[in-house]
Amino acid sequence: MSYERDNIRRMAGYTPGEQPQNPDAVKLNTNENPYPPSPAVMRALAETPADALRRYPSPTSAAFRRAAARQHGVEPEQIVATNGGDELLRLAITTFVNPGSPVGVAEPSYSLYPVLAGIHGSPVVRVALGEDWRPTPDFAERMNRERVPLTFLVNPHAPSGTLLDPDAIATLARSLAGVLVIDEAYVDFVDPSHGHDVIALTRRHDNLLILRTLSKGYSLAGIRFGYGIGAPGLIEPIAAKTRDSYSVDAVAERLAVAALEDQAYATSTWEAVRGERARLASRLEGLGLSCAASESNFLLARVPEGFAGGASAVYRYLRDQGIFVRYFDQPRLRESLRITVGTPEQNDTLLRALARMNR
Amino acid sequence: MSYERDNIRRMAGYTPGEQPQNPDAVKLNTNENPYPPSPAVMRALAETPADALRRYPSPTSAAFRRAAARQHGVEPEQIVATNGGDELLRLAITTFVNPGSPVGVAEPSYSLYPVLAGIHGSPVVRVALGEDWRPTPDFAERMNRERVPLTFLVNPHAPSGTLLDPDAIATLARSLAGVLVIDEAYVDFVDPSHGHDVIALTRRHDNLLILRTLSKGYSLAGIRFGYGIGAPGLIEPIAAKTRDSYSVDAVAERLAVAALEDQAYATSTWEAVRGERARLASRLEGLGLSCAASESNFLLARVPEGFAGGASAVYRYLRDQGIFVRYFDQPRLRESLRITVGTPEQNDTLLRALARMNR
Repeated sequence: MSYERDNIRRMAGYTPGEQPQNPDAVKLNTNENPYPPSPAVMRALAETPADALRRYPSPTSAAFRRAAARQHGVEPEQIVATNGGDELLRLAITTFVNPGSPVGVAEPSYSLYPVLAGIHGSPVVRVALGEDWRPTPDFAERMNRERVPLTFLVNPHAPSGTLLDPDAIATLARSLAGVLVIDEAYVDFVDPSHGHDVIALTRRHDNLLILRTLSKGYSLAGIRFGYGIGAPGLIEPIAAKTRDSYSVDAVAERLAVAALEDQAYATSTWEAVRGERARLASRLEGLGLSCAASESNFLLARVPEGFAGGASAVYRYLRDQGIFVRYFDQPRLRESLRITVGTPEQNDTLLRALARMNR
Repeated sequence: MSYERDNIRRMAGYTPGEQPQNPDAVKLNTNENPYPPSPAVMRALAETPADALRRYPSPTSAAFRRAAARQHGVEPEQIVATNGGDELLRLAITTFVNPGSPVGVAEPSYSLYPVLAGIHGSPVVRVALGEDWRPTPDFAERMNRERVPLTFLVNPHAPSGTLLDPDAIATLARSLAGVLVIDEAYVDFVDPSHGHDVIALTRRHDNLLILRTLSKGYSLAGIRFGYGIGAPGLIEPIAAKTRDSYSVDAVAERLAVAALEDQAYATSTWEAVRGERARLASRLEGLGLSCAASESNFLLARVPEGFAGGASAVYRYLRDQGIFVRYFDQPRLRESLRITVGTPEQNDTLLRALARMNR
């Protein structure tokens, strides 16, 4: 006998990117930072006292909230720490969406959004992005027409890497009747010359919730640490009511604070990734694979039909060689591969394999 | 403007036990193990490679599931790892209860159960425990009459420490129409002479979900690691659908495996706690505070009316001295204090303070 709820019984789970066990694998499929975390993080790990393991963590993650508030020039009441960015996505739905009310997503986008909506028992309103991977002018209107209480938008966009500027986000926040979550999982890799800053908008838009994560920018995907930034009225019900008191663990919090406080190190990895991003894009173009302009740590590379049997064949061929990239078998993406920017050596291995295939 | 769902706006959050920052505090309020985690855990922490931080963890927590399956003599498919036991409680509701359907709890019990039901949008069916803190004979019938799809029972019971034997649990599992979650957060402290074993029942009862945690028995409250044990059909929808792929972090998983594999050390702390539990109960009785027979790492001590102004006055007096115990201002509990069994030194400090108050 099955005890599952009907909506759970009917649904499929989320499919995470493959985590190959082979240490020699060239892993360019789940957008990890190719560089290790800061030495300060490794010191904080080694110096963790036994009592930090034995005791419950701070129920409010007070130390992290203070550190993040300092870093972003906001108040600790505007920060909520979560078990990875994924937990903030779930909590946003839990806090702001009645089961049965719809969740809004841009298509294509992070495939976890509709899975979380499905678990919650909510339908998904999908509005297609324009040719340029940006919301079309009627985006907010269409969400409002369907009475969407919460809309997810990832920026820079995944899987294309396209950046939407703060003015466009402000217009969306003003136009949407519900909450707008800007998933900034990849924002650390945006070129600083853009002066991109969405956090400043939280002062004027009480429906704007920003997601940040330590997974990519700070090389800490293993410890599951994300956080939300928003107006205090948006953060409070998450931090004080829907979030579990102990969702963030004591070791992760220590490491997250250490990582955030070593901006010089993190910045150096972002610069290195940007340099490699430009080189990899240019070399891929040279091989005939065109890439959308990316402000993220990955490239969406379009594989021409004539190239070694097309994108899915290339994906499988690379996989057989121990080179993992991501392939999405869905409209607008099935001609492309999403390639995480790796170290120069990893990128060269990939480029050599591609060159060999197309000989 | 508030964007909260109605049920979230109306509810209050969970109130966690106080986590005093003063390192000299005598902390007997949140049921942590007073002894540090195994030296093997500290070694696993120190030896964590940078790559374990940088990369995503195993989406299935495969290493932990194997270790727990070995430990309990079940299959890995019968184990699901969660971000603390609290996450398993939430996931059980998410997986098996439609919003609006009721959640069953025994009264009094762990105060997080009704909070999680409230977040989910579910009413709570509360059935009072008998005088002996055990379910009354009509418990299952009353849950079935209200069409309860999921019932929580903590065993040993909190906050009394009373143990319900496996036969009684088998009868409940057989009688209940829905899922029965046995929250074994404190089961490691049960005297081995009882031969208490509920896991064996999962072979015959497909609606029985057992919660375990590393927080108490393994001195690891800080890393948030719990797990569920049940029939594969009960575990699968949690593990593959409602649980986030990365809810358990890589460091926590390493430490949890190391802790579980050092049974000799963990067992030695349980024996020490049992020894102190007996001594503390006897000394409290000597002071006039009667304790329910506890198989857990805490005692529910009834404070007689004439004793220093009663339980709430004693609670505040102890708190002023830096001694933290737990006081619940609710029916059947407001005459008592829940006291975590500490080290011999901590327990003596408490006993001396109590003796002073009642001079």
